[in-house]
Amino acid sequence: MNGELDFIESLRALATHPAARGLEDDAAVLEVGNETLIITHDAMVEGVHFLPDQDMSDVGWKLAATNLSDLAAKGAVPVGALLSYSLGADKERFITGLSEALDRFELPLLGGDTVSSNGPRHFGMTAIGRASHTPVPSRSGARSGDAVYVTGAVGAAMLGFEALRDQTGADSSLFRRPIPLIEQGRLLAPFVSAIMDVSDGLLLDASRIAAASGVSVNIDPASVPLAADEDRRMDALRWGDDYQLLFTADQAVSLPVEAWKIGTVCTFSGSDILLNGETPSPDFPLGFTHSSG
Amino acid sequence: MNGELDFIESLRALATHPAARGLEDDAAVLEVGNETLIITHDAMVEGVHFLPDQDMSDVGWKLAATNLSDLAAKGAVPVGALLSYSLGADKERFITGLSEALDRFELPLLGGDTVSSNGPRHFGMTAIGRASHTPVPSRSGARSGDAVYVTGAVGAAMLGFEALRDQTGADSSLFRRPIPLIEQGRLLAPFVSAIMDVSDGLLLDASRIAAASGVSVNIDPASVPLAADEDRRMDALRWGDDYQLLFTADQAVSLPVEAWKIGTVCTFSGSDILLNGETPSPDFPLGFTHSSG
Repeated sequence: MNGELDFIESLRALATHPAARGLEDDAAVLEVGNETLIITHDAMVEGVHFLPDQDMSDVGWKLAATNLSDLAAKGAVPVGALLSYSLGADKERFITGLSEALDRFELPLLGGDTVSSNGPRHFGMTAIGRASHTPVPSRSGARSGDAVYVTGAVGAAMLGFEALRDQTGADSSLFRRPIPLIEQGRLLAPFVSAIMDVSDGLLLDASRIAAASGVSVNIDPASVPLAADEDRRMDALRWGDDYQLLFTADQAVSLPVEAWKIGTVCTFSGSDILLNGETPSPDFPLGFTHSSG
Repeated sequence: MNGELDFIESLRALATHPAARGLEDDAAVLEVGNETLIITHDAMVEGVHFLPDQDMSDVGWKLAATNLSDLAAKGAVPVGALLSYSLGADKERFITGLSEALDRFELPLLGGDTVSSNGPRHFGMTAIGRASHTPVPSRSGARSGDAVYVTGAVGAAMLGFEALRDQTGADSSLFRRPIPLIEQGRLLAPFVSAIMDVSDGLLLDASRIAAASGVSVNIDPASVPLAADEDRRMDALRWGDDYQLLFTADQAVSLPVEAWKIGTVCTFSGSDILLNGETPSPDFPLGFTHSSG
């Protein structure tokens, strides 16, 4: 993914407006009159973000859910969405799942664009929310001494993906239909020092909070709540798609939602992430590309 | 494109929020606190909206310009944009052209998403603007007795496309790098009864204003200013991509920008569009799909 990193570096030079937050965050934070809007765009590509034979109703749901999860991590209340849709099979299924997610999380569809295409399909959504708390939390506020928390178990999406891929018949619903934690995000926003949703793997995303904050994050892997068997613990910590909220807060803060303490923040030690106080070896994978091909 | 029309009908059932304007407009119009935002999303697909061997700097420019043109048709002042980018060749060229357009039209980049893909590339942009005049003009306000105007010549993009396709060396700049009429749109917004940008062909877009307004639009083809030779007149009136503004206004209004009167609005006659008072035959093409394949 070096191409992606280089490209984002080039974009960063363009994104000098304060609302862009240096492209360090999952969403733009835009002051409009007397309101603060959170605006995010996530795309899903056939063969990369979803399996070509997946039920399109699940793809429609997930497109909305992943965007809503970015709003959740900013404590935002959903306002509306624009859809970018490539024509192809199972349009009605797509609309069914999309509509179920938009209804459930109260995100009105406001517009978008529909295009034809003759390759893998691309879907995109721009979701707009209203900040419920300012300053809007970011990835970059973790301070030495803070505790690190996660809102729930990781690994369910991994097991769901494997069940779907291997057609075992086991429950795949948390991979197919993740739940954005809108309400938890809104309640947490006033109390956190840094926050993001876990989309690319808990360890990788923890390292991003550390890098953005200029600190090290020391994770105790055994303390992370798990939706998988113990022998899959490290796999589950490297998987994304669970859309739990990962955040840091002052140790003394009494949290308004259930969350598990999984580590602490310390001054930068030379490594963004530590595991039980140890620096992982340079080839230790923090996350992996789980759904391509 | 029936698949697209059916799909948009299904989406319309979801888009009940007033900001969606029933998906009849090119942009959503969202009240936020004491401001009115205009939000639009346009996508471009390789092989459909641009030629695979086109200079990627022109593709980057055009992506911004087409979105800005939707803002122009609402009289909006650009606020910011989110980019959806598929990785592939010539990233630097893309950024160069994108950045030139963003700078020239003062549209800050605020965020977006970058994806990998293994087929034709898709690019998308969500552009956000601030209404300079409320109520924000729409396609649906044309009234019988109004005059129909266009801000300038059509046909230049058609000639540019042909020059590029046939490698004649003739000027293709107005196809490659269209100019969104931001300032004209802002000046016109208080004076028009209906307005849109000409992206899919002047006759087709005029019929859309008529349909949205419940009137007929009577166009005098000979009065449309032309950037092509006279023998291409009807082709030029069916081509899009010139991004002129097409609008209706009371005949008595003194317009703040240069525009050509090209027809009149009358009560619905059974056909959305009339040519010199005559109903075109049902197989008369109003526009055509010009750039696919």
